[in-house]
Amino acid sequence: METRSLSSSHHRTSPYKVGVPPKQKLWKEFSATLRETFFSDDPLRSFKDQPSSRKLILGIQAVFPIFEWGRSYTLAKFKGDLIAGLTIASLCIPQDIGYAKLANLAPQYGLYSSFVPPLVYAFMGSSRDIAIGPVAVVSLLLGTLLQNEIDPTENAYEYRRLAFTATFFAGVTQATLGILRLGFLIDFLSHAAIVGFMGGAAITIALQQLKGFLGIVNFTKNTDIISVMQSVVSSAHHGWNLPTIFIGSTFLVFLLVAKYIGKKNKKFFWVAAIAPLISVILSTFFVYITHAEKKGVQIVKHIEKGLNRPSVSELYFSGDYVLKGARIGVVAGIIALTEAVAIGRTFATMKDYQIDGNKEMVALGAMNIAGSMTSCYVATGSFSRSAVNFMAGCQTAISNIVMSIVVLLALLFITPLFKYTPNAILSSIIISAVIGLIDYDAAILIWKIDKFDFIACMGAFFGVVFASVEIGLLIAIVISFAKLLLQVTRPRTALLGKIPRTNVYRNIQQYPEATKVPGVLIIRVDSAIYFSNSNYIRERILRWLADEEEQLKADGLPQVQVLIVEMSPVTDIDTSGIHALEELHRSLERKSIELVLANPGPVVMDKLYASKLANLIGEDKIFLTVADAVQTCVPKFTDEV
Amino acid sequence: METRSLSSSHHRTSPYKVGVPPKQKLWKEFSATLRETFFSDDPLRSFKDQPSSRKLILGIQAVFPIFEWGRSYTLAKFKGDLIAGLTIASLCIPQDIGYAKLANLAPQYGLYSSFVPPLVYAFMGSSRDIAIGPVAVVSLLLGTLLQNEIDPTENAYEYRRLAFTATFFAGVTQATLGILRLGFLIDFLSHAAIVGFMGGAAITIALQQLKGFLGIVNFTKNTDIISVMQSVVSSAHHGWNLPTIFIGSTFLVFLLVAKYIGKKNKKFFWVAAIAPLISVILSTFFVYITHAEKKGVQIVKHIEKGLNRPSVSELYFSGDYVLKGARIGVVAGIIALTEAVAIGRTFATMKDYQIDGNKEMVALGAMNIAGSMTSCYVATGSFSRSAVNFMAGCQTAISNIVMSIVVLLALLFITPLFKYTPNAILSSIIISAVIGLIDYDAAILIWKIDKFDFIACMGAFFGVVFASVEIGLLIAIVISFAKLLLQVTRPRTALLGKIPRTNVYRNIQQYPEATKVPGVLIIRVDSAIYFSNSNYIRERILRWLADEEEQLKADGLPQVQVLIVEMSPVTDIDTSGIHALEELHRSLERKSIELVLANPGPVVMDKLYASKLANLIGEDKIFLTVADAVQTCVPKFTDEV
Repeated sequence: METRSLSSSHHRTSPYKVGVPPKQKLWKEFSATLRETFFSDDPLRSFKDQPSSRKLILGIQAVFPIFEWGRSYTLAKFKGDLIAGLTIASLCIPQDIGYAKLANLAPQYGLYSSFVPPLVYAFMGSSRDIAIGPVAVVSLLLGTLLQNEIDPTENAYEYRRLAFTATFFAGVTQATLGILRLGFLIDFLSHAAIVGFMGGAAITIALQQLKGFLGIVNFTKNTDIISVMQSVVSSAHHGWNLPTIFIGSTFLVFLLVAKYIGKKNKKFFWVAAIAPLISVILSTFFVYITHAEKKGVQIVKHIEKGLNRPSVSELYFSGDYVLKGARIGVVAGIIALTEAVAIGRTFATMKDYQIDGNKEMVALGAMNIAGSMTSCYVATGSFSRSAVNFMAGCQTAISNIVMSIVVLLALLFITPLFKYTPNAILSSIIISAVIGLIDYDAAILIWKIDKFDFIACMGAFFGVVFASVEIGLLIAIVISFAKLLLQVTRPRTALLGKIPRTNVYRNIQQYPEATKVPGVLIIRVDSAIYFSNSNYIRERILRWLADEEEQLKADGLPQVQVLIVEMSPVTDIDTSGIHALEELHRSLERKSIELVLANPGPVVMDKLYASKLANLIGEDKIFLTVADAVQTCVPKFTDEV
Repeated sequence: METRSLSSSHHRTSPYKVGVPPKQKLWKEFSATLRETFFSDDPLRSFKDQPSSRKLILGIQAVFPIFEWGRSYTLAKFKGDLIAGLTIASLCIPQDIGYAKLANLAPQYGLYSSFVPPLVYAFMGSSRDIAIGPVAVVSLLLGTLLQNEIDPTENAYEYRRLAFTATFFAGVTQATLGILRLGFLIDFLSHAAIVGFMGGAAITIALQQLKGFLGIVNFTKNTDIISVMQSVVSSAHHGWNLPTIFIGSTFLVFLLVAKYIGKKNKKFFWVAAIAPLISVILSTFFVYITHAEKKGVQIVKHIEKGLNRPSVSELYFSGDYVLKGARIGVVAGIIALTEAVAIGRTFATMKDYQIDGNKEMVALGAMNIAGSMTSCYVATGSFSRSAVNFMAGCQTAISNIVMSIVVLLALLFITPLFKYTPNAILSSIIISAVIGLIDYDAAILIWKIDKFDFIACMGAFFGVVFASVEIGLLIAIVISFAKLLLQVTRPRTALLGKIPRTNVYRNIQQYPEATKVPGVLIIRVDSAIYFSNSNYIRERILRWLADEEEQLKADGLPQVQVLIVEMSPVTDIDTSGIHALEELHRSLERKSIELVLANPGPVVMDKLYASKLANLIGEDKIFLTVADAVQTCVPKFTDEV
């Protein structure tokens, strides 16, 4: 008696019945599924049982969280935000000018995009740490997609209009996903694919910088590594500019050292943060006094002074370009979203607050729609600047407002000073910024954890590097989907054995000491049984049985009399699955083997009864645990156990 | 002591360690996955440890199973095959003539397709019960797709060439899927979607027959119910032919009564099987003696006498039509495959023999390739004729050879006799044949078992009936995929409680008598944790916790100290999943709640260690069962249990 658990000794006389959940009303079931799919975060929770005036206030606070956290805003918090805001402003100004070039736009458009969108976000966003503005990957993606449609040098005006149109649709896409609560769709881009895509994009962006860095005039428009290297090599003799290379490499070394110091000692993060601005100031001054621009060093030449102009009238709302802009906008919007949501989630976890993904998307969408009407292109959360923001001690989105005001002042007063800034320095700043996007450690970890993920990661990486950003993205999505589909097509099954001195049955591959019960074959099915795998599962179970029978025959042991299917992991079953079980039952019946089910879940029980399969198999053949099933069905063996 | 199982009392002093499977070699792991995906049926099993001469014979037998079962063929078996073959021949001849019209081809092409393909199949196929030939749904599908490209009346020759080309590519598709062992791809068409699609196609085909049945001359080319009914109504006054309606409806009643008799009493199945041929003979004779064709009764007029002509030279291998033929061929080939494989599996289960799906596809592909070169169009297994074949007592594929020989004789000698066969009779035969494809019972069962499946079923049905076969097919595929993706995006989670007087923890929704353990929250995750659901699962667990804490606070009970995640159903985890667990651990740490894992499977354990997450959580926080976890982590509560 000592060796048997109460549950089973109890069951031998009256086995504990497997619960059949109460029949749910159809509408209730349907609405529960709907709620779990689209409102899994229960967004209306705080509205429950509140008077309607309070509901109005809560509603406003839901759309503009600033009215919620703003009420407890303090001077201490502002101190943190001020320092953080000034730091990210010093970082964003030189980056913006460089990123605008990646998008084939004039430098001021980068600055514009660091002025309006952060303001809008500060009112609507719920992340406290994200730093909003143009980012390298989205700028490159937008630039690549746009120049496939319009030549940015020959038709600069049309190009710009298309860029604003794409930005508008990027915002609409983001807001729509948020409003329709389809935010979960971006989860279909796997972490591994994003790591690969970002790394590939970083390499591509760095390669693009060779143009500015080496001072090459005739540079390919393709972004793949082969075209770029051909451009670089073919211009080696006459196209490289030595003073440019000198300036660029000196400051690149300076930036990388600053970055290293900031990484090594978190206290000195501001060294890395301030280095780009210092580089710009020093190099501009250097060019100004040496007149290096006359020795072929390319300079910024001109940044328009003054604030963003309205650009509503420049959006395409008819003609061929609407569809093209929409297509580009959808792609850029989703990539921008992925980046922003990843950043938001990361920092929210670090500071332990919750972010509502769908609300966040509405905020990002609204900010890009507003941006598209004020001469901005797609802005989103920047990895590097958000990290600096965090380390500089930002407390709320007010740091974005501070940054925005600094950019405003820069636009109003200091843009002419950038005239002599060498392009090489912008290239160096971009290179040092995007290097951080190459996440070796993550790739190594992915390799260790999941080889299939690693394939997705490398597929995206090499796709971006050797083909283009679009191809890389496509590869990443296709491999990610293939993985999901493989999972639902070829689920695992396992033979179970009894773990010595317990009543627990586990996979004998994982627990080699587990012993099989004579005359019984226990198989666990590790997945919901759906049309995509029902035939496979049925055939796989029969193959386990055939293998076992062959082995038993060779060993001269008694044949299998009972086949127990452990259903704990079978969370759902559909009509095809029911058919497969029925066919399995028939096949076994002809071999005089009993089919026994252990622990079907509520949904499965419901469907077993709805389809009358429970009656066919026999209700007394359905048990709460494998141990119960073994003890009840194989009485002659239990005493030996 | 009585109330505690040995396993847990044993564990309290030394918990049974969760097994970490031995580290597998990368290649071994990879090849195991590959094998399970593509060779899950272990096709080379019989080749193991055999001399090479034996291997050659086995190889030939693998490709041509007739050389295997043929060796034990007996006269008794032949008797069964002969009767079955004659029965299905009598059924197929009138059906073939009608089906060819569905494909917009001359009647003899239907007969051709019942001559060559069954012969090829008999040598290569592994089903003993399937009856090969043209079928209604594929004929309709092919006819619809082909007439979108070429007008069948104006350009009959080009149309025929494209039909053969499509047949060729249908065969190539089928054989390729089989050879590359991608047969599992057809499992992505769910049972529910097929039921809906077949039902819709049956309605559409029956509606098409109104043309022949009512003797309408000007009939729409669209297949949707609205266009067809408009055609019927608008021709009501001048386009309907009364003698035609008389003949058609008389024999339709006769056919349906015969069918009813055959269904009611299985012994009289031959009544239903022979009725079509009798109808043809009687009606042809009737028209011949009354010269009803002069009263507007449309007749077959002409069926070419003689055997199939070679059509290799008529296949398009260059030009625009290659791609069009290939596209149509792929669609028709896959639908044909779905039908044949479903039939093969059904009868194999009934007679308890195994069918190798991939080998079957090669056989079907080879037979259609051969068919395309001998003036046949796409043939596959017919539901109605296979059932008759089975009931008539067929033993092997020899019944197909018998049928093929009868068709050969018919082509050589009796086709001129069909001259006066009224089209109305063919329409009646088709209507009575396709009615069987409308499976009310299956649809009702689907409704009972799975509402989502029912939506897929109805989507396919109404898509076919109100739009077209392609649209219906597309709807079926999209809904099927959406269901799979929903499953991997929004998996179920459940709160567990202890079932009284046992050590078993189960879903408290399914077992309302299960009790929660004070201070402990036990959550089961019902799915592999992948990038598509990792964020959702993390947030859902935290929401369970928040709900529980709110409830406990309201009830004035002690707060949660331990959160146990039951991982039994978590069959796999990827990098995103590991990150989600890590973030969950961090969030809980800040709330001073312990994260405990119960029963992670081998793959999950492997990855927990590879990612060092096991160390972060603590190896002593991973337990074999929930009961162990509860007893070890919450000692102060165990005595109360």
